Amino acid sequence: MRLMFVTSNPGKVEEAKKYFEPLGVDVHQLHLEYPEIQADTLEEVALFGVEWLSSMIDGPFFLDDSGLFIDALGGFPGVYSAYVYRTLGIGGILKLMDGVENRRAHFESVVAYWDGEAHLFTGRVDGEITNGPKGSSGFGFDPIFKPHGFDKTFAEMTTEEKNVISHRGHALKAFADWLKENLK
Amino acid sequence: MRLMFVTSNPGKVEEAKKYFEPLGVDVHQLHLEYPEIQADTLEEVALFGVEWLSSMIDGPFFLDDSGLFIDALGGFPGVYSAYVYRTLGIGGILKLMDGVENRRAHFESVVAYWDGEAHLFTGRVDGEITNGPKGSSGFGFDPIFKPHGFDKTFAEMTTEEKNVISHRGHALKAFADWLKENLK
Repeated sequence: MRLMFVTSNPGKVEEAKKYFEPLGVDVHQLHLEYPEIQADTLEEVALFGVEWLSSMIDGPFFLDDSGLFIDALGGFPGVYSAYVYRTLGIGGILKLMDGVENRRAHFESVVAYWDGEAHLFTGRVDGEITNGPKGSSGFGFDPIFKPHGFDKTFAEMTTEEKNVISHRGHALKAFADWLKENLK
Repeated sequence: MRLMFVTSNPGKVEEAKKYFEPLGVDVHQLHLEYPEIQADTLEEVALFGVEWLSSMIDGPFFLDDSGLFIDALGGFPGVYSAYVYRTLGIGGILKLMDGVENRRAHFESVVAYWDGEAHLFTGRVDGEITNGPKGSSGFGFDPIFKPHGFDKTFAEMTTEEKNVISHRGHALKAFADWLKENLK
């Protein structure tokens, strides 16, 4: 089976292959722009994306969307994490969290798969916002997110370490598990 | 001529009528949801909106989108102003601007009109972010925005005062002026 992953990021495709190769599923990158809507949840964004793309792509495909949700900020930056990273940056988030006691936050990732209809898979990792940035691997807000049960931030982990526990890793695994059942 | 204004806000329709009644154009509210995309500019959001709606609405219609762009924050909150108001609120913006010397900001509004093709009209008002909220009329970030040349915030003005100088007022006027020429 051939499965298209709609993304501009080849690193994500490599990550996905680890989950799908054991199933005999070939993952290929498809670099195609699609509108991401303004919404409160990643599910809404991902669902609109696959439905919008469904008339353009032959065969099964999927895409993903991720965000950082900070409890004390009402879920901000949420689905707008990429934009907020570009404008306010890590410094802006730390300023907003200055003096805030409740540091709880979670990264969430949604995979939307299209095979004639939409199927959504969610992954989540809980943790907290640190007081300052640590580490230099990964991207985005990784340097200020410390997952529960670990003494380091996402940016202090190797890609392999992070992928195992990350929100996207969980979402991809949920998708792969479902596909395994449904390919039988 | 009958012109539909796609909005959930009856107050906006009343404001628009002042510009179009003198032209013999009847403005009617059409309450219809449409996807607002994630983008860097209001123009992109508004353009996607009218094109998306164009297959559903008979006859000419328009919609508008507005945002507050703060220079020192890289344009934040921009097209996401409504979301940021709901999550971070005025307090969050003031916190981000704490100790920031450059207070320059502008409100921008884009009207997108569809008559078989799209026409965009932009209005803008320049000003600055105050150090604290003042006034209670208007909505959103009005209490912390002081337009250039005035000693009060948008929230300290009456609706009539604000409409004359506001970004949306300018965009509606540009649209009405264009329509007047093109109805001849």
